[in-house]
Amino acid sequence: MNGISATDVIRAKRDKLGLTDEQIDWVIAAYTRGEVADEQMSSLAMAILLNGMDRHEISRWTDAMIASGIRMSFPTEAIGGRRTTDKHSTGGVGDKITLPLAPLVAACGAAVPQLSGRGLGHTGGTLDKLESIPGWRATLSRDEMLAQLADVGAVICAASDDLAPADKKLYALRDVTGTVEAIPLIASSIMSKKIAEGTGALVLDVKVGSGAFMKDVESARELAETMVTLGADHDVRTVALLTDMSTPLGLTAGNGMEVRESVEVLAGGGPGDVVELTLTLAREMLATAGLDGVDPADKLADGSAMDVWKRMIRAQGGDPDAPLPTARETQVVVAPADGVLVGLDAYAVGLAAWRLGAGRARKEDPVQAAAGVEMHAKPGAEVRGGEPLFTLHTDEPDRFADAEAALAEAVVIAPEGSRPDVPPLVLDRVG
Amino acid sequence: MNGISATDVIRAKRDKLGLTDEQIDWVIAAYTRGEVADEQMSSLAMAILLNGMDRHEISRWTDAMIASGIRMSFPTEAIGGRRTTDKHSTGGVGDKITLPLAPLVAACGAAVPQLSGRGLGHTGGTLDKLESIPGWRATLSRDEMLAQLADVGAVICAASDDLAPADKKLYALRDVTGTVEAIPLIASSIMSKKIAEGTGALVLDVKVGSGAFMKDVESARELAETMVTLGADHDVRTVALLTDMSTPLGLTAGNGMEVRESVEVLAGGGPGDVVELTLTLAREMLATAGLDGVDPADKLADGSAMDVWKRMIRAQGGDPDAPLPTARETQVVVAPADGVLVGLDAYAVGLAAWRLGAGRARKEDPVQAAAGVEMHAKPGAEVRGGEPLFTLHTDEPDRFADAEAALAEAVVIAPEGSRPDVPPLVLDRVG
Repeated sequence: MNGISATDVIRAKRDKLGLTDEQIDWVIAAYTRGEVADEQMSSLAMAILLNGMDRHEISRWTDAMIASGIRMSFPTEAIGGRRTTDKHSTGGVGDKITLPLAPLVAACGAAVPQLSGRGLGHTGGTLDKLESIPGWRATLSRDEMLAQLADVGAVICAASDDLAPADKKLYALRDVTGTVEAIPLIASSIMSKKIAEGTGALVLDVKVGSGAFMKDVESARELAETMVTLGADHDVRTVALLTDMSTPLGLTAGNGMEVRESVEVLAGGGPGDVVELTLTLAREMLATAGLDGVDPADKLADGSAMDVWKRMIRAQGGDPDAPLPTARETQVVVAPADGVLVGLDAYAVGLAAWRLGAGRARKEDPVQAAAGVEMHAKPGAEVRGGEPLFTLHTDEPDRFADAEAALAEAVVIAPEGSRPDVPPLVLDRVG
Repeated sequence: MNGISATDVIRAKRDKLGLTDEQIDWVIAAYTRGEVADEQMSSLAMAILLNGMDRHEISRWTDAMIASGIRMSFPTEAIGGRRTTDKHSTGGVGDKITLPLAPLVAACGAAVPQLSGRGLGHTGGTLDKLESIPGWRATLSRDEMLAQLADVGAVICAASDDLAPADKKLYALRDVTGTVEAIPLIASSIMSKKIAEGTGALVLDVKVGSGAFMKDVESARELAETMVTLGADHDVRTVALLTDMSTPLGLTAGNGMEVRESVEVLAGGGPGDVVELTLTLAREMLATAGLDGVDPADKLADGSAMDVWKRMIRAQGGDPDAPLPTARETQVVVAPADGVLVGLDAYAVGLAAWRLGAGRARKEDPVQAAAGVEMHAKPGAEVRGGEPLFTLHTDEPDRFADAEAALAEAVVIAPEGSRPDVPPLVLDRVG
């Protein structure tokens, strides 16, 4: 008993006093042990959301979340001389970039030790996507991770329960208490996991737009700056890109179909925006790992990234050559008129994919490997009334109507000759 | 399922949007049923504390809390032609005013149907005080209440569990989540119980100062105005007085000793401040009940208020003539120097009484009937070093040291000829 109580900590933040180091350390540790109740932590989270935290408080909060569990490390000498670098995206629709990116960066000589998560709501999860590959498993021991990093150079697996357990508990709480959208809490949640994961460098892809948590560039930049500062405070070389999420990435949103699209990129094809963002993020990751001399485009072109992909999938029990699952039912949605597709809303497409069964409403829900939305046009394309705009995939045809309703909101068609109002893919760089 | 979710309601208040009637009705009803979790309600309470509620929202919130349980009524024809009026104090140190006040107002011809509570923290509870009278019981059926109101004119008893159950649950939650000090929540908590109790009129004693929830006149006035408005919105004639709680009321703080002091007032004696506030509040209550013509001072002087007191105590099983319990141990605290007592801090005296065993830290804790602080001087008195300032009473002598430590902070003695800086007893009137 050090004389700190949960109500003292809550009142301090409520009354706009800074939290002391002792208060932060105590409240996170006591919450992890179950001595601070959920109803106390949610009240504190709302006070943080509304009254903010300063740089020192956020850094200490992050430290305390890291200290709630184990901290991993991947010394260069233990993984075949490779230097670690990782990427984290704040989540978007059709954002399958991790899949081609991790093997590509490994093919260039770095090690990518990515601990990833599952999807919730309208954005997909990397593990859900990979689990559509027959045999692939998300759970690895630390020794398996080390061996795979040394041998293949890339691992994408589930974070173990003892990595920042305070964050796991707090994240689930924030989800049901209206306290997700607090920049100090988002930043410390992401960075506590990435720092505890033991990566030496990190590139953050902060999504901006309707399909992202951050709807505007200002709040995305604030989040990016907060995370880059946290990285620097914890000796992780960190860079952030702000990238557009007003329209989906690529031409697919759904687990198995995003794997297929990623393999197309690794084979040297694939949608232009996915290729562009993969190469941009690869260059940033390589720079943070001190490997500026290598051009990742060469590694796509010569097949070495594809080779790492196959080895990475096989190392985790998957068969990279097995056919991916296909949905029992499909339905085509046609363009309502002739013209130019000037808008294709990311959130609406994500919602449609979610309603088709690609995502989950609760973390215990299953997802369909083959469900999702296939897009036949992206903003800028000329379309003809009656011709296919989307193909919807699901195992449960009673889901089509709700997905179509979401997509009806997604599409803006303007007269021929119009130009789409689409922002550049990379909006800004921080760090 | 009407499409409202707890997170929608929380987000609306968090984002400074007004809550709709439907949202308020749903969230209170669902919380009472256990469908909105404590961690969701506490997050909402913090958002309300920080972002406020407007007049309409507070009124609807109060309605919803009333609707969570039963609503009582005491028609004049059912209680011998008497009109009901009640008093509520926001709580202070030494605040025993309800004890002489209820029988006094009944002696003047009104009916006082007071549903009261127990103490928590440094302020005492009316039921705890009355329970120091041998045999007295706090729990009455509605029929017993009606009969006693018709016969005696005054009832002080425990609120039943089905009176504003939403408030009971929310109050306990606010206590542990740093969300007590929200004026909309304090106002709706008090007024939902008083309106559901069925009184026709109400006088509020809003305490201001170190020993009260409200530390400054501005916030006390805001609370008073909010409650007077709520009363008017619900057809309860409501008046509020703002009264000083920078120093304790009377010369005692403790359950049994406050009963003794109240009986002294009913016998025509007692400390001047207790007599003055009792008469002032009695006049306000009588005015709200349309009984302006009666002078309550006469009813103290002629013994009729004492007569009602004895009948009221007997009607609830108590023996008004039995000796009150005395503490096993007492200890005298002397003045540290000669001079004038210019300050006697209410909070510190309340804390000392609480530490002696008069109050409780958790609602399930017992209280000592005889524990408390007896004051031998009030601000303005000349004191001599070495002469008694306080007598401490408790059944457990190991409590003396902590109580003395609290009192050391309570006392300010200035050179002879100094004048105490004590505000008037009644600071303002609202309504």
